[in-house]
Amino acid sequence: MERVDKILSGGIVLTMNAAMDVFLNGAVAIKGEHIVAVGAAESIADRYTADELVLCEGQVIMPGLVNAHTHAPMTLLRGLADDLRLDVWLIGYMMPTEQSFVNPHFCRLGTKIACAEMIRSGVTMFADMYYFEADVAAAAAEVGMRAVCGQTVLKFPAPDASSYEESLQYTRQFIEQWKGHPLIVPAVAPHAPYTCTDEILSACAALAREYDVPLLIHVSETRQEVEDSRKEFQMPVVPRIKKLGVLDAKTLAAHCVHVDSGEIRTFFNHRTGVAHCPTSNLKLASGIAPIREMLERGLNVGIGTDGPASNNDLDMFEEVRLAAILAKGATLDPTAVPAKQALLMATRMGAQAMYMEAITGSLEVGKRADIAVINLNTLHNSPKFSRDEDAVYSQLVYAAKSTDVRHVMVNGVWLMYDQRLLTVDEAALLAEANALAREIDRFLIAREGNLLNKLIAIGGVERAESFEIQVKSHLPERVDAETIVAPLLKDERVRVVRKSYYRQYDTYFTFQDETQGRVRYREDDALNAEGEVINVRTRLTYTSPVKEREFDRAVLLSRSRFIAPATRPLRFYREYFRPNAEYEVHKTRHRWHILYKGVLFYLNVDEILVPKVSGTFIEIKSQTWSMRDAEYKAPLVSELLTLLGVTEEMRVHKEYVEFAAT
Amino acid sequence: MERVDKILSGGIVLTMNAAMDVFLNGAVAIKGEHIVAVGAAESIADRYTADELVLCEGQVIMPGLVNAHTHAPMTLLRGLADDLRLDVWLIGYMMPTEQSFVNPHFCRLGTKIACAEMIRSGVTMFADMYYFEADVAAAAAEVGMRAVCGQTVLKFPAPDASSYEESLQYTRQFIEQWKGHPLIVPAVAPHAPYTCTDEILSACAALAREYDVPLLIHVSETRQEVEDSRKEFQMPVVPRIKKLGVLDAKTLAAHCVHVDSGEIRTFFNHRTGVAHCPTSNLKLASGIAPIREMLERGLNVGIGTDGPASNNDLDMFEEVRLAAILAKGATLDPTAVPAKQALLMATRMGAQAMYMEAITGSLEVGKRADIAVINLNTLHNSPKFSRDEDAVYSQLVYAAKSTDVRHVMVNGVWLMYDQRLLTVDEAALLAEANALAREIDRFLIAREGNLLNKLIAIGGVERAESFEIQVKSHLPERVDAETIVAPLLKDERVRVVRKSYYRQYDTYFTFQDETQGRVRYREDDALNAEGEVINVRTRLTYTSPVKEREFDRAVLLSRSRFIAPATRPLRFYREYFRPNAEYEVHKTRHRWHILYKGVLFYLNVDEILVPKVSGTFIEIKSQTWSMRDAEYKAPLVSELLTLLGVTEEMRVHKEYVEFAAT
Repeated sequence: MERVDKILSGGIVLTMNAAMDVFLNGAVAIKGEHIVAVGAAESIADRYTADELVLCEGQVIMPGLVNAHTHAPMTLLRGLADDLRLDVWLIGYMMPTEQSFVNPHFCRLGTKIACAEMIRSGVTMFADMYYFEADVAAAAAEVGMRAVCGQTVLKFPAPDASSYEESLQYTRQFIEQWKGHPLIVPAVAPHAPYTCTDEILSACAALAREYDVPLLIHVSETRQEVEDSRKEFQMPVVPRIKKLGVLDAKTLAAHCVHVDSGEIRTFFNHRTGVAHCPTSNLKLASGIAPIREMLERGLNVGIGTDGPASNNDLDMFEEVRLAAILAKGATLDPTAVPAKQALLMATRMGAQAMYMEAITGSLEVGKRADIAVINLNTLHNSPKFSRDEDAVYSQLVYAAKSTDVRHVMVNGVWLMYDQRLLTVDEAALLAEANALAREIDRFLIAREGNLLNKLIAIGGVERAESFEIQVKSHLPERVDAETIVAPLLKDERVRVVRKSYYRQYDTYFTFQDETQGRVRYREDDALNAEGEVINVRTRLTYTSPVKEREFDRAVLLSRSRFIAPATRPLRFYREYFRPNAEYEVHKTRHRWHILYKGVLFYLNVDEILVPKVSGTFIEIKSQTWSMRDAEYKAPLVSELLTLLGVTEEMRVHKEYVEFAAT
Repeated sequence: MERVDKILSGGIVLTMNAAMDVFLNGAVAIKGEHIVAVGAAESIADRYTADELVLCEGQVIMPGLVNAHTHAPMTLLRGLADDLRLDVWLIGYMMPTEQSFVNPHFCRLGTKIACAEMIRSGVTMFADMYYFEADVAAAAAEVGMRAVCGQTVLKFPAPDASSYEESLQYTRQFIEQWKGHPLIVPAVAPHAPYTCTDEILSACAALAREYDVPLLIHVSETRQEVEDSRKEFQMPVVPRIKKLGVLDAKTLAAHCVHVDSGEIRTFFNHRTGVAHCPTSNLKLASGIAPIREMLERGLNVGIGTDGPASNNDLDMFEEVRLAAILAKGATLDPTAVPAKQALLMATRMGAQAMYMEAITGSLEVGKRADIAVINLNTLHNSPKFSRDEDAVYSQLVYAAKSTDVRHVMVNGVWLMYDQRLLTVDEAALLAEANALAREIDRFLIAREGNLLNKLIAIGGVERAESFEIQVKSHLPERVDAETIVAPLLKDERVRVVRKSYYRQYDTYFTFQDETQGRVRYREDDALNAEGEVINVRTRLTYTSPVKEREFDRAVLLSRSRFIAPATRPLRFYREYFRPNAEYEVHKTRHRWHILYKGVLFYLNVDEILVPKVSGTFIEIKSQTWSMRDAEYKAPLVSELLTLLGVTEEMRVHKEYVEFAAT
């Protein structure tokens, strides 16, 4: 009789080994970190005695689940912003909050919460991608979970690095520090092909190969990403990263929603692992990954929850179930991805995708003891049929819940016993998380209460024109622009600096609280003399409420105005700012930059097309910076108006948006 | 101060009323069966005192969830057969098992288990469709749940009726017996348009209108159903049932996966409710219902789990979550069906779809007290953000689990308190369910062990030919059929009764255990003289292992043979019988029915196309029923062979399938 540390006995043992052996009354013997025997309960009892014997009648003893893709610290951002489009969610909420709050402590706290939640759902190993990954690793190791920790590298400044060179240096140190740890495998995580330059991708691949560590990356998550890659690099995402050597590393590609058969073959040839994230892909409307084809082609496809800010939990039971049923719905074949295969993806195959199959993912002699015990003696798991030998898989995948997980062990150490977590203090974590949530709330509420702050949060803003002197007149008849300005341009004191011709499509966002000001999204189509578009520019302008003061025949406007290039579609800004009302103004604009008595004026001759306003508008504007300057310029405006033949009755005080808004 | 029975106070009250009022520190006062006040905790405390005060800090107080479509007693068949195609699952497993096991006791037991599970997941009302619905109603009422109970009517014999007239009569009695019950609303449930004749559908609609009770029906669940309806009735499903008056009742249509915009408009015009069943629709690969469009058109769309044999649980939290994320994935729009709307579908809107909104579905004064209290103080529900006022909906839908439900009340009565079920004995139900499962196991294992029983289980079988005398010969050269039989046909003792010409496509299923016999699926294409197909017939033949005995130059075969028209595709039989191996034999067959000396013989001249076997085969066969008859016929076969010029060396003992199998 050999003495071992622990024997789990009397349950249904699902080994998930290559033969998919099942022992209906089985047992597992554990010594130190390792599994030393798996088999029928009787035969184990004949050969081993244990310090600790755990009876598992009516329960399933199986390898712990493998969460092949997550961002553990984001538990702290769970439920912060939902039901939003990816860009609004990411650029509008996640990134600004991360820039302000993510630090080493945040990552440790968030990871511990994630680990606690994952242990509760039977997970023993996860693949992570985040910032300050050394702290993620430290927290996971402290809790006792197994993890492949990928340090993020990307082309933008990140919470943990101001440049990619800095991230890469940090990653190298991180790998050297953690390589060889019994629980943690450090990894390189270039965030995604669209957030990394060719140089970054190549450098990350080289680093992964240099240290023989996994490389984690998001790949072809959205259709847009693939289209953009075709446009920018003349090829889809997978060929590009292949060319850059990314697939020559031990690569785990997350999502892979929009990959074709050729790309799947490429993955197979490179033994690239895939992390399938069905909940996240549905919730963010990315699409449905072709996992049946991947599996048929022989890829190692694991299942991941993705981060808890886009899921919004780390429940692998929900994830496995969804992977199984979604594949059926997507292929219109109810025999696709049966329960047994789905559970395999969430165990041994997930470990293969993570290059960890040598030590975990199945109950086999010599592997580490990473084990979950599931209680099937509950109402929602009843009754139990034995006709179909695969019924136990179907029960686990289609009926069981994460809350049926009773015990969890990693590396031979209990992390949860009888649903009690042994290595984390849940109450303390909860209290700390909620305190942090209140801080984040305050930060975002302050920002949401101020349009300008919201604009600044998404970046690229520059302040412009704080004062301007202007006059606007309306000629009831439609007049040709060149004709109307001809007398003025003929004047010898006037010099034309520039002439341009536009069609402008303006969308104004207005808000309940008018003191908030408003936001204008403008598409400026520059036209040639034939009216053909020669250039398009989109800009976003925030305008604070206007204070105006009469000044001779002109008006002095004092207002703050912030302009940023509008790099995202109008839809983004609409969903981000959530205006109370929205108005359209379309017009043609002939614009002359003129010098009159040495002062720069803008002379606009506008025709409003939407809403339909007949006649022609003339605007004269000049930037100003002091009352004295304004006092000097006001009479010059008067003179210009006289030259144009514009009279006082033609004066208009309304702004263009007001024609649309009334 | 008014005295009430119960006050739930201090939680976040989600009223789900028309204004979607939320009280962050709210309370609900209950007197008898009714809600008498909903509002801020303080204001309720000022106005009412209660016999029972339940403090709900950190918890959500909301209307109980509404499961808009299920088949409650099928809890007893949960996990019996999974990952199968709908027809194999239904015709191969569900229907035969139901025919043998479903009785009033089965329905009561299964319903109680379903109720227990639903209460645990916060459900207070469900819509049911099954057999012996009076027993479903009795069990639900005993447990204390609210239910709309639809008695199934269909054109086939059912466990509770041998004809539709009988079901209809049963339904009428059921309605009269239960109408006016405080918890149960009886209803008519014509199973589906494809399982009901026009007459049945009209009669059910008339009955529903006569008693003003709901009508529950499955509608357009699969694409096949719609295509079949177009073929058979020259219109899709919805116009057909509209024409038959089905939509003039208070109709709740389940599934509605394959409905177009026009049909959605038809539903709107008739105020037809829809029960959306996302898990079932994915798991059975039916497709994805266009619920966003339905919601935009103003339909009342509830959410249902469907029966636990196709889900495989009754967890409405999983269902609501899936409804929300699947709509986003299906429309490629992450803003589709936000959490708030999904939760509305699972509460008030579900009640509207079931015509029950006057009494339940929201927390409003005057409605019945059907309430669930959910604990959000758990790790997977943390942290909590307050910036977005809809965050609580998102937390409930995307992060919370059914196991977070703490208390459940129906009609003012606690059914679960502190996660303890008060009106059912779970342990006793479990024991009984497992005992029944063992019986079903025995039944199905016995059936699965016997091919003939498996064949009989799916119906339409007739026994045929128990003995036949036959001889088969092979001519190594290909010979024209007419030429070879010419000498025989010229003989004056021979009279041709019928001549036919076929191309036959045979698929043989063989099994590990050869004593099981085998199954042949034959497609018989009758050809005209030009070789054009004039008729197609498919048949299934079960053959027991052959016992043969030499008889002069012929062979006496004694075997059992059962023939049934093969009304389902080959694929069905393959998935149902799961053969060990499968062989194809394609041949052309010229067949003469001849009388020779007054005895009927079949004379086949066959050419085997697949597998490629050169030459021509001649078979002579005759049915026989006794040894004496065989003894009489054997020399006649010899004489016919002589007439054909066939010699002993040409004799073949192999059956055609053996050419393919070797």
